[in-house]
Amino acid sequence: MVVVAILAAGRGTRMKSSLPKVLHSLGGRSLVERVIKSVEPLSPSRQLLIVGYQAEAVKAAIQTISSLEFVEQTVQLGTGHAIQQLLPHLTGYTGDLLVLNGDLPLIRTDTLQKLLQTHQENQNAATILTANLPDPKGYGRVFCNSENIVQQIVEDKDCTTAQRQNRRINAGVYCFRWHNLAEVLPHLEANNAQKEYYLTDAVTQVGKVMAVDVEDYQEIVGINDRLQLATAYEILQTRIKEKWMVAGVTLVDPNSITIDDTVELQSDVIIEPQTHLRGNSIIQTGSRIGPGSLIENSQLGENVTVLYSVVINSTVQARTQIGPYTNLRGQVQVGAGCRLGNFVELKNTQIGDRTNVAHLSYLGDSTIGSRVNIGAGTITANYDGVKKHPTKIGDRTGTGSNTTLVAPITLGNDVYVAAGSTVTEDVPDDSLVIARERQVIKPGWVSKKRASQSQP
Amino acid sequence: MVVVAILAAGRGTRMKSSLPKVLHSLGGRSLVERVIKSVEPLSPSRQLLIVGYQAEAVKAAIQTISSLEFVEQTVQLGTGHAIQQLLPHLTGYTGDLLVLNGDLPLIRTDTLQKLLQTHQENQNAATILTANLPDPKGYGRVFCNSENIVQQIVEDKDCTTAQRQNRRINAGVYCFRWHNLAEVLPHLEANNAQKEYYLTDAVTQVGKVMAVDVEDYQEIVGINDRLQLATAYEILQTRIKEKWMVAGVTLVDPNSITIDDTVELQSDVIIEPQTHLRGNSIIQTGSRIGPGSLIENSQLGENVTVLYSVVINSTVQARTQIGPYTNLRGQVQVGAGCRLGNFVELKNTQIGDRTNVAHLSYLGDSTIGSRVNIGAGTITANYDGVKKHPTKIGDRTGTGSNTTLVAPITLGNDVYVAAGSTVTEDVPDDSLVIARERQVIKPGWVSKKRASQSQP
Amino acid sequence: MVVVAILAAGRGTRMKSSLPKVLHSLGGRSLVERVIKSVEPLSPSRQLLIVGYQAEAVKAAIQTISSLEFVEQTVQLGTGHAIQQLLPHLTGYTGDLLVLNGDLPLIRTDTLQKLLQTHQENQNAATILTANLPDPKGYGRVFCNSENIVQQIVEDKDCTTAQRQNRRINAGVYCFRWHNLAEVLPHLEANNAQKEYYLTDAVTQVGKVMAVDVEDYQEIVGINDRLQLATAYEILQTRIKEKWMVAGVTLVDPNSITIDDTVELQSDVIIEPQTHLRGNSIIQTGSRIGPGSLIENSQLGENVTVLYSVVINSTVQARTQIGPYTNLRGQVQVGAGCRLGNFVELKNTQIGDRTNVAHLSYLGDSTIGSRVNIGAGTITANYDGVKKHPTKIGDRTGTGSNTTLVAPITLGNDVYVAAGSTVTEDVPDDSLVIARERQVIKPGWVSKKRASQSQP
Repeated sequence: MVVVAILAAGRGTRMKSSLPKVLHSLGGRSLVERVIKSVEPLSPSRQLLIVGYQAEAVKAAIQTISSLEFVEQTVQLGTGHAIQQLLPHLTGYTGDLLVLNGDLPLIRTDTLQKLLQTHQENQNAATILTANLPDPKGYGRVFCNSENIVQQIVEDKDCTTAQRQNRRINAGVYCFRWHNLAEVLPHLEANNAQKEYYLTDAVTQVGKVMAVDVEDYQEIVGINDRLQLATAYEILQTRIKEKWMVAGVTLVDPNSITIDDTVELQSDVIIEPQTHLRGNSIIQTGSRIGPGSLIENSQLGENVTVLYSVVINSTVQARTQIGPYTNLRGQVQVGAGCRLGNFVELKNTQIGDRTNVAHLSYLGDSTIGSRVNIGAGTITANYDGVKKHPTKIGDRTGTGSNTTLVAPITLGNDVYVAAGSTVTEDVPDDSLVIARERQVIKPGWVSKKRASQSQP
Repeated sequence: MVVVAILAAGRGTRMKSSLPKVLHSLGGRSLVERVIKSVEPLSPSRQLLIVGYQAEAVKAAIQTISSLEFVEQTVQLGTGHAIQQLLPHLTGYTGDLLVLNGDLPLIRTDTLQKLLQTHQENQNAATILTANLPDPKGYGRVFCNSENIVQQIVEDKDCTTAQRQNRRINAGVYCFRWHNLAEVLPHLEANNAQKEYYLTDAVTQVGKVMAVDVEDYQEIVGINDRLQLATAYEILQTRIKEKWMVAGVTLVDPNSITIDDTVELQSDVIIEPQTHLRGNSIIQTGSRIGPGSLIENSQLGENVTVLYSVVINSTVQARTQIGPYTNLRGQVQVGAGCRLGNFVELKNTQIGDRTNVAHLSYLGDSTIGSRVNIGAGTITANYDGVKKHPTKIGDRTGTGSNTTLVAPITLGNDVYVAAGSTVTEDVPDDSLVIARERQVIKPGWVSKKRASQSQP
Repeated sequence: MVVVAILAAGRGTRMKSSLPKVLHSLGGRSLVERVIKSVEPLSPSRQLLIVGYQAEAVKAAIQTISSLEFVEQTVQLGTGHAIQQLLPHLTGYTGDLLVLNGDLPLIRTDTLQKLLQTHQENQNAATILTANLPDPKGYGRVFCNSENIVQQIVEDKDCTTAQRQNRRINAGVYCFRWHNLAEVLPHLEANNAQKEYYLTDAVTQVGKVMAVDVEDYQEIVGINDRLQLATAYEILQTRIKEKWMVAGVTLVDPNSITIDDTVELQSDVIIEPQTHLRGNSIIQTGSRIGPGSLIENSQLGENVTVLYSVVINSTVQARTQIGPYTNLRGQVQVGAGCRLGNFVELKNTQIGDRTNVAHLSYLGDSTIGSRVNIGAGTITANYDGVKKHPTKIGDRTGTGSNTTLVAPITLGNDVYVAAGSTVTEDVPDDSLVIARERQVIKPGWVSKKRASQSQP
């Protein structure tokens, strides 16, 4: 049995932000949300989030994604002080406590599992996560005997020159047998320059403490400023992109691409440069996306192509070609074998199979049939200044260039709208509709006009 | 005299692809096509491509680019077995055989030439290409005497600790005196875990074998998965971009730019970030392309600017300004000193000098004169639902905003189309054409409407 | 008292350019302009720019940004010869001379200040800037005693193997007591392969010479070809981006972003990938820019969002949302809480608060009120082929889809334009204006047409 405590009370001054540090976003999810997700597979009996700076903002942000308990630390007097706040909440608890920071977004569940397992199998009083850093400067060094039993933890500034050579550092992730910790916690002292209570001091007092090395030291990158945030993002992106390349996805110039870890890609998908895949997107085999595209919370079928376009909250069936400069703005379902071209915006619209909307169109709140040809410059006038109205277009219908469809309106099957028409009333099946003036020619007009304009 | 054999029978399982490995694309050309191009300057008397996995797909892809002979290896039993398939095809042949893998896209012709020359000048039975790798793990090590005569080739897994220190590896590119190899080939044995026939075994049996080091070890990067494909792409791109920078092209943030090796650039061209130059494109001196542009199979004259635009299969004369958000979709010829602006699509269209198409237009199947001003929102209605029709516009003609031109149609020289007109019939020179309704004003209408809409 | 001399007479052959080397642009400013800016805070009594190759072009480019004196070096016979040209201009001058190359764009003012201070405090005859390079190949090595007094400067090609181990190089930035230098200058000899007069020769003859190390050796990167130009750009960008990250700006994938050093960002700005911030732009707190956007010489208020858009020479107030695919082309002022959507171009236009221009519109030379709704496809016909005319639209007015407004024109407050109308005359407050034909339906037309088209 394990209870998890996540430290999320700090401000994170070096972020220079009005937002608490743990709420900063990393690849679409906040730092603390990533930590919460990493502990979830451990099935903790309780999860306690210790909040302090902007506690209400943190609570509000977390409540939408997880149901954990909040413990307030009203003044921030160090990690030991933070864990002291748990005492009234864990009275009589006899299991283990896993403690980790809310700014540790890259920690893997496997690592936590290994820490917990080592802790329990060895019946340790505490087990701490350690890492061997290429550059350990600034971190507390951990000294162990040959059986990984911790002998000493020395802060960087207190290290001798010899001790400083030790590259094994304290990663700040702890597993405690709670009742051992609970005995020690009330007696912590703030005998240091910062006048803070350190959890590290408790570690050395609880009994047998073991250290477990993290396999990949990049997991324990903490976020203290925006440079570290950028570094963590790069590590996260490399993880995700390598995973998909191994799985059979071609990334052309991977460094220029970003992929959220919530995205699913099938093999033989090709992602071109400067493409961003976000949220709960799924892209099926044979599709080619980019360059220069943004896909967010959207499902794309097999062999879809997207070039310089934006697709948000939408679904696109197989073999449809999109772009360049198409904007599927949201709530759009596009059938198979369609062509959506340049300067086309679709919003809250369904489109059947083999329908083309190739140029300079806006279709909003529309239901369009199959094999329809929407002419260049066709616009649904769906908004009367107060509310939105629907447009329905049947199968095999075509609209001429610069057609305006004033909603609410229904065009039947096999309708043809003459170019330049503004259609205001429903049109039955198999009809031509025309709403434009005949042309009048005024010969000699241009030369006369130019002559008059060139007068002084 | 040299015959070339390229091994292209493998599946490439780690690519996780429905496409055979050698057909994967690297910078616009397949892996095997790159290998074929690298041997062409050697003027081989014959080129034999050994195909197996998806043989028909490989043949079909190659036939369009080169006329070489295909040899089928119906089961894949190793490189030695692959070369055994050549025996019936090279009966009585007395020259040399150059063997290389179809997944070796970065090998330089110079390297192959040096290999061949060394082979012939030293009258070797075989000459093999070697490389000194920073990390030779996994490769067979080559041990030579001081005269580069190969003494031993040891597979990585069979190496002693001392042997493993040798960083000189077998690159898998071989030159054989064919009649020596032909004697040995039938006697190869598959005495190994994989039960495969290795060409390496033949090497050690043919007689005097010499090793030749490749100058740049990046040339011998083989492609086994998508990570290696990405690495090879980066190496290729670095080669190409350094070449153009040395030649006087400014690349602003070169890492974000991609350039196919088929592209030609003149000095004093400036390429801005996130720009992609593809296919047989030529860009002349003084032009500035990007950010965010794609140029494919297109010729751009001197001092052209392109900003956030797509130019495909088109020609643009000097001093024309394009973008942002222009799409030259194909078969477009643009004259000198034109301005093509935002949300403008041209397709199969010719435009004279000093003509502007500045906003929100689609011109398809059109021939436009010089000094024409195409008004914002002008659209050629070139498609009647069955076929495409042409539009012709003379010199010095102007179209008003939101003009629709219903093709087939011809506007003469010095025509002016009134804004909002739909033009359906030809217009002679020096004429105004107008096709729109006069406006009617209904005072007080808006306040009445709003009052009614706010009723419950 | 210090006089500054900047060497800008060379051609820079390896740039392969028709432009003199020092005029090449690095992040929006020429190389020599960057050098001029770096010395300005030293308040030199005079600044002399030694010009030669394309002297007139260099003068013309510099005159627009700074008022310094030009000294012509009509033939280029080396750095010593260049400085000899100053003799007639500095007769009787008793202060110091700071000499630096015009292709040294990354030198920091602090470094020059330190050089000057050391020079003056130690009453040196000359003080030279040195750097410790990881790869000193090609540079002259500087040998000093323990008090940093220069003993010897040896060209790379003249170094013994032992001397070549010295990684302290001559950065080519000198401070001289002028009267010491002036005595030596006339006696320089061109005893070398290039037959050039070297300033280094003068250094060893003037008296006590001290060396000062630059802290960051990247400052002394000189630009001789486009590869070095790209390297310098990367160094400059890293400087700028680290500065803004430390200051509280989130850069998502910083490598893909470029920021001119003239840009100002507030904390909690988020810059998404492939975004370029140029010129005198200011972006206020909470704004999110990108991906794929270009902001140039523009001011953006708090909490503005910009997605895949171009904003040039414009001002945008708080909370306005822009993009994707919006083009603010110049001289645009947008109020607070507006929404500018896809395929919308604004030019020389003012827009009030809470006004929407959401789709497929061009507004030029316009003044638009507050809470206006510009319908999709609305276009101002502002150009009659000869000159531009203004459009004025009052508050709370709405235009229907595909509206054409023929300027000069004024729509009052609370006007509504019916969809598809071409408006040519002013419309008073609280009016509906309509200018379109009624629709006519021709039943059975489509099936008849198709039957006829399918005839042979």
